[in-house]
Amino acid sequence: MGMTMTQKILAAHAGLEKVEAGQLIEADLDLVLGNDITSPVAIKEMAKMNTKGVFDKDKIALVPDHFVPNKDIKSAEHCKCVREFARRNEITNYFEVGEMGIEHALLPEKGLTVAGDVIIGADSHTCTYGALGAFSTGVGSTDMAAGMATGKAWFKVPGAIKFNLTGKPSKWISGKDVILHIIGMIGVDGALYKSMEFVGDGIRNLTMDDRFTIANMAIEAGGKNGIFPVDDLTVAYMKEHATRSFTVYEADEDAVYDEEYTIDLSELKPTVAFPHLPENTKTVDEITEDIAIDQVVIGSCTNGRIDDMRIAASILKDRHVAKGMRCIVIPATQAVYLQAMEEGLLKTFIEAGAVVSTPTCGPCLGGYMGILAENERCVSTTNRNFVGRMGHVKSEIYLASPAVAAASAVAGKIADPRKLDA
Amino acid sequence: MGMTMTQKILAAHAGLEKVEAGQLIEADLDLVLGNDITSPVAIKEMAKMNTKGVFDKDKIALVPDHFVPNKDIKSAEHCKCVREFARRNEITNYFEVGEMGIEHALLPEKGLTVAGDVIIGADSHTCTYGALGAFSTGVGSTDMAAGMATGKAWFKVPGAIKFNLTGKPSKWISGKDVILHIIGMIGVDGALYKSMEFVGDGIRNLTMDDRFTIANMAIEAGGKNGIFPVDDLTVAYMKEHATRSFTVYEADEDAVYDEEYTIDLSELKPTVAFPHLPENTKTVDEITEDIAIDQVVIGSCTNGRIDDMRIAASILKDRHVAKGMRCIVIPATQAVYLQAMEEGLLKTFIEAGAVVSTPTCGPCLGGYMGILAENERCVSTTNRNFVGRMGHVKSEIYLASPAVAAASAVAGKIADPRKLDA
Repeated sequence: MGMTMTQKILAAHAGLEKVEAGQLIEADLDLVLGNDITSPVAIKEMAKMNTKGVFDKDKIALVPDHFVPNKDIKSAEHCKCVREFARRNEITNYFEVGEMGIEHALLPEKGLTVAGDVIIGADSHTCTYGALGAFSTGVGSTDMAAGMATGKAWFKVPGAIKFNLTGKPSKWISGKDVILHIIGMIGVDGALYKSMEFVGDGIRNLTMDDRFTIANMAIEAGGKNGIFPVDDLTVAYMKEHATRSFTVYEADEDAVYDEEYTIDLSELKPTVAFPHLPENTKTVDEITEDIAIDQVVIGSCTNGRIDDMRIAASILKDRHVAKGMRCIVIPATQAVYLQAMEEGLLKTFIEAGAVVSTPTCGPCLGGYMGILAENERCVSTTNRNFVGRMGHVKSEIYLASPAVAAASAVAGKIADPRKLDA
Repeated sequence: MGMTMTQKILAAHAGLEKVEAGQLIEADLDLVLGNDITSPVAIKEMAKMNTKGVFDKDKIALVPDHFVPNKDIKSAEHCKCVREFARRNEITNYFEVGEMGIEHALLPEKGLTVAGDVIIGADSHTCTYGALGAFSTGVGSTDMAAGMATGKAWFKVPGAIKFNLTGKPSKWISGKDVILHIIGMIGVDGALYKSMEFVGDGIRNLTMDDRFTIANMAIEAGGKNGIFPVDDLTVAYMKEHATRSFTVYEADEDAVYDEEYTIDLSELKPTVAFPHLPENTKTVDEITEDIAIDQVVIGSCTNGRIDDMRIAASILKDRHVAKGMRCIVIPATQAVYLQAMEEGLLKTFIEAGAVVSTPTCGPCLGGYMGILAENERCVSTTNRNFVGRMGHVKSEIYLASPAVAAASAVAGKIADPRKLDA
């Protein structure tokens, strides 16, 4: 029996010829990531260990992004802790305010994540880098501490689910619709501790930003990781952003999958996850009642990339957000911000009556920059719509693509971007 | 004995031919202002009054700006309270996220404040509109409530101090240096409950944005208001922004002033207010030791206007903020943001390693977007450097002009913008 793509990467990093699902292994790490919430805990844990310092100052990335620029005194102290640790240990990839962005958008952009890597990050959406053909997964702060100290981590080798993507998505259908469709199909624990391996000739019809979005939300189906094969587009992306060499792994022909699904991308429709779970999906066609909303958020590690900005701007161009609507656009990184400005997208947002935030996770996790009051409703391109995630326990989050979000901002209720063409 | 400019405006609004310092009068209000912190209190107070509603839906301005876009659940609830009050009372000038900006920059820009007005606002920096030749002053939320209900307010007519401004400021000297110099000279209670009346032929050498900055900080000397005569520049500004008619009042030749000062603008030097009071001023020439800083903030109702953006960008152009420095630029309104983007200033900020925030009061009052940790130091273009104002009680704020702030961001310590030319 052969190995999945994920298993091959793990085997190579554990110095083993073969691994199988359920096996416990110790793997070498190519990158250990932390943010302003999780790093301070890891730094304190690491201080308790009998260690001379970090295993490799070039293989740790510290990205304050959740409550940055500092939301309050507590977050200021957390950031200070991370900053001082980075200075003390001469961490190469510490990103200060002005250099930073949302970690999972920033690291691929900076070329710190490439195909074949094993990456752990003390943030659940670390699975994003699977879009590049890396094994990457979220861990707790203690594992991050051990990873920073030793450059290794223990893993239970995951089994896998194969998602065979075929066909070409129609206009306004993006990676967000693909992954929401999948989570709606298999549920929030549908891929529990498994690799979600995406294959098939439909992948060539997905942009890199689509793939980042899809891999990013693997965790929302309970996945250990999400991973894409490396194709010409992936290679071109890495050559543009990274200087490190990369290794391409392919699943064996006889790799074992616990389940297999085939999804025809051409049949997908704009999809929305209703409160309070990402699995509560409906296509916009299935939404019969008017769902009035108070706020739209376009951003996050899931959908704050340049493609997302372009899609949202194409809808908001020469239109205006509905009276009384708050539309908050958050480019994920400084580079995305600058690019969006150069292309005139930020101007489009402002002229449409939206506000543009400096890069931050902000409202996604209830941090700041758009927290909801009681009974308020938000259409958001973020990744989680749990109870109270973005504010009051009686607020509601509807997860959607940038296209649906922008169309909804204009309509003042959940709207179908396809109807804009009509 | 004649009346000061302030007294003439108050007399006209009280229906009296003559008023004198110390007299209690009831004056008609042209505008009543509140923000997201003070309006909810006023709205609750007003609900207790036996009133049919607001006195004039066109003469109330509600500007959520302090913790907006909503910082947290509490601020979200406050904003919701203001929003619902505005809807219920059909308030014309309620500014939603996307339309808004920092109140004291926004209202003149929207033409809601003109020469001859009597304006109260539940925010201490309401004195800003004196730049246009209006009487405007900060009040508590209860006074705001009474003002919204009746369109009137009681005042004790203030005495006055005359500031005779002469000469022309040299390069890099702006309104901020003028007002810091004055506060350094007379102290934070130097103008307690008095009008600060600015006169003299030096005024023609001050831009409108300079004048807004100066009037804005009258309260930092304890002033009841700060006020400028109306000249061609003022008239041009009002014609550009306002559709309302305005009335020009001039002080009588024999008006009584408690004190008079003459300030030669050509002799002013870049001035910094050291912690923890705006009166603790030093010129940059007087700063002999290196004062290393962690953060620079360029923005606020004091210095977030287009002139401020231009000055800061002219310094940051083709330069970079110091390693480890956080430089946060906050255009005061959406219009300033858009203008700064059109002129390439925002690009300059990003390329220099600064971040650009959506318009908000943010860190100025310790709200968010750049709060300080223990022992951190910030050079800020804001208006108050009180203990703990911007974060931890052991943090320090140095108040300065955008030029000094930008130069300091580049140097990593308090720096003299004049030395950039050398």
